[in-house]
Amino acid sequence: MRAAIYQGIRKVEMQDIDMPVIGDKDLLIKVEKAGICGTDVGAYVGGGDAVGIYPGHEFGHEFVGTVCRIGKDVKDIPVGMRVTINPTARRPLSCGMNSTEIADMSGAFSEYVYVEEAQLGYNVLPLPDSLSFDSAVLTEPLAVATHGVGKAEAKRGEKALVYGGGTIGLCTVAALQRKGITDIIVSDINDFKLGFVEKMGAIPFNPKNGSLVDFVKEKWGTSIGNLSEETWNADVVIDCAGAPFITGEFMANAKVDSRFSIVAINGTPAEFSPLFLLAKEAKIAGSRGYTPEDIKEAIRTLDDPNCKLPAIITHVFPHEKFPEAIEQASIATQAVKVVIDYNA
Amino acid sequence: MRAAIYQGIRKVEMQDIDMPVIGDKDLLIKVEKAGICGTDVGAYVGGGDAVGIYPGHEFGHEFVGTVCRIGKDVKDIPVGMRVTINPTARRPLSCGMNSTEIADMSGAFSEYVYVEEAQLGYNVLPLPDSLSFDSAVLTEPLAVATHGVGKAEAKRGEKALVYGGGTIGLCTVAALQRKGITDIIVSDINDFKLGFVEKMGAIPFNPKNGSLVDFVKEKWGTSIGNLSEETWNADVVIDCAGAPFITGEFMANAKVDSRFSIVAINGTPAEFSPLFLLAKEAKIAGSRGYTPEDIKEAIRTLDDPNCKLPAIITHVFPHEKFPEAIEQASIATQAVKVVIDYNA
Repeated sequence: MRAAIYQGIRKVEMQDIDMPVIGDKDLLIKVEKAGICGTDVGAYVGGGDAVGIYPGHEFGHEFVGTVCRIGKDVKDIPVGMRVTINPTARRPLSCGMNSTEIADMSGAFSEYVYVEEAQLGYNVLPLPDSLSFDSAVLTEPLAVATHGVGKAEAKRGEKALVYGGGTIGLCTVAALQRKGITDIIVSDINDFKLGFVEKMGAIPFNPKNGSLVDFVKEKWGTSIGNLSEETWNADVVIDCAGAPFITGEFMANAKVDSRFSIVAINGTPAEFSPLFLLAKEAKIAGSRGYTPEDIKEAIRTLDDPNCKLPAIITHVFPHEKFPEAIEQASIATQAVKVVIDYNA
Repeated sequence: MRAAIYQGIRKVEMQDIDMPVIGDKDLLIKVEKAGICGTDVGAYVGGGDAVGIYPGHEFGHEFVGTVCRIGKDVKDIPVGMRVTINPTARRPLSCGMNSTEIADMSGAFSEYVYVEEAQLGYNVLPLPDSLSFDSAVLTEPLAVATHGVGKAEAKRGEKALVYGGGTIGLCTVAALQRKGITDIIVSDINDFKLGFVEKMGAIPFNPKNGSLVDFVKEKWGTSIGNLSEETWNADVVIDCAGAPFITGEFMANAKVDSRFSIVAINGTPAEFSPLFLLAKEAKIAGSRGYTPEDIKEAIRTLDDPNCKLPAIITHVFPHEKFPEAIEQASIATQAVKVVIDYNA
């Protein structure tokens, strides 16, 4: 089969490799569409060791496809079923890799992906007939966002502030809208991405043009906190950007009873006032990956005719042009989601 | 009426003061039992300005009593009803005081307490006939603990670590037990208080005798976190002590998906790693005061025959001996909850 093999920084090669051999409990999926994730781009631009993308290996973990071969013990997943997978559970942890490696080495940039110990509803998720592969390819990043919105306990009618207008930030907008949240501000310094925020029906803001805090207060008014301080009126704040100042900005402006969910990776320590958190009754939650339930909810979200998320797909490349596709994906001012079409 | 009047550090005087005058929507409660709170002791030992306990004023906010007079517009609260109150809502905020002042100036150390704009189920809470005043006097601190346990999202069968074995820590044990949690470790440096931890059926630990982290791991085993680190197995950690190291100890040892609820006031900033919280999927929540629902749940908890909380009452004084009572309450190696009996 043809496969895009990661060879190190700025180097991906199309190769012929052996078809995966599946066991009695496993199955093989013919990839129909795959998405290039920020993690893939990160490996391409800066090296992949930290995330389990190693030179000489297959990679890619966002995809949809058709089941094309099943082991003899697989009973409830027929050949021909349209599916996506939970890449973090594609292989059991007993294989010796951690869940990140299992995901990132899925091989979605190869023609076929195998799933070990396939279980419907756990690591293999069916797609409804009404949902096209074109849209469903966004399931995995939307599951990340769905998990983060869940951790933020976002409720219908609340106001949400999202840091970061990349794929995860835009998916977060879709996940919030699915929860009945219509007042959404997205902050990003990239005007190209802010254009997609607007297409999604959220309010874009570029902090290069002024103070985000002032903008949020102007849009949604202010409240008085328990320490008599003036707060912004965001009920939910979700960090999909990972800039070090964000936690502090939340802390300084948090509304009483509001929730802060951290989805983006950020290694810089932040200062944290237990007294302040107590006075605010605010909550800070880390959000990592997703559960099978988040994937199912992401599929339902994409299947909802009101979902505007497919607008974030900026480029579609045929499989053979994968090296060009990932180069394009690495240009943040030109691309949001770059998709590979295996039938083009 | 007789009243214990706060006069400053180490000074409380018994005085005759005027009976409160009530309006058409208000009511008056004859106090039957009152508890001395850590806040009252703090004002006695170190001054009360920060919490709204001012020289020359009534104070006290933990009490139970009998409705003895009602305004003509009060329809659903009969004279003779056995009640406690939500002290933070005893007066509307429009009175110009904040909710802490409203609570701490309730005047539970006077013979009668008035409640402005009385509303059953909101600021006046009925006591079931089966619940004695002796037990019900613990409702207010138990409501604080119930709120904190709620913020920690504690679930049946989980393991809970509580920092602090004072009244709020012991009330937290009762609130956890009410939720079906039986594995509870309480850490405190005061052996006298740890004796009550044992009486409550929880596991006491004194960090003067060794490492709490080692003790928790020894008792409950360890888990492997998402960063391959060894974690303790506490699902829920509740800070009822307020020592500055506690947040860091939680961060360093937190189990995946565990929750940290901050109930104790602690002004020292803590360092906080967004990446760590993300990797752990841990949650940090501030807990402040309580809602009417927490008070109702506290009443149900005390009315449960399995509740061991009344064991924490170490002393009962008659009202006229209030100055001795608060002096006794200030000796942490001899007293947990000191109660005033208005009928003794």
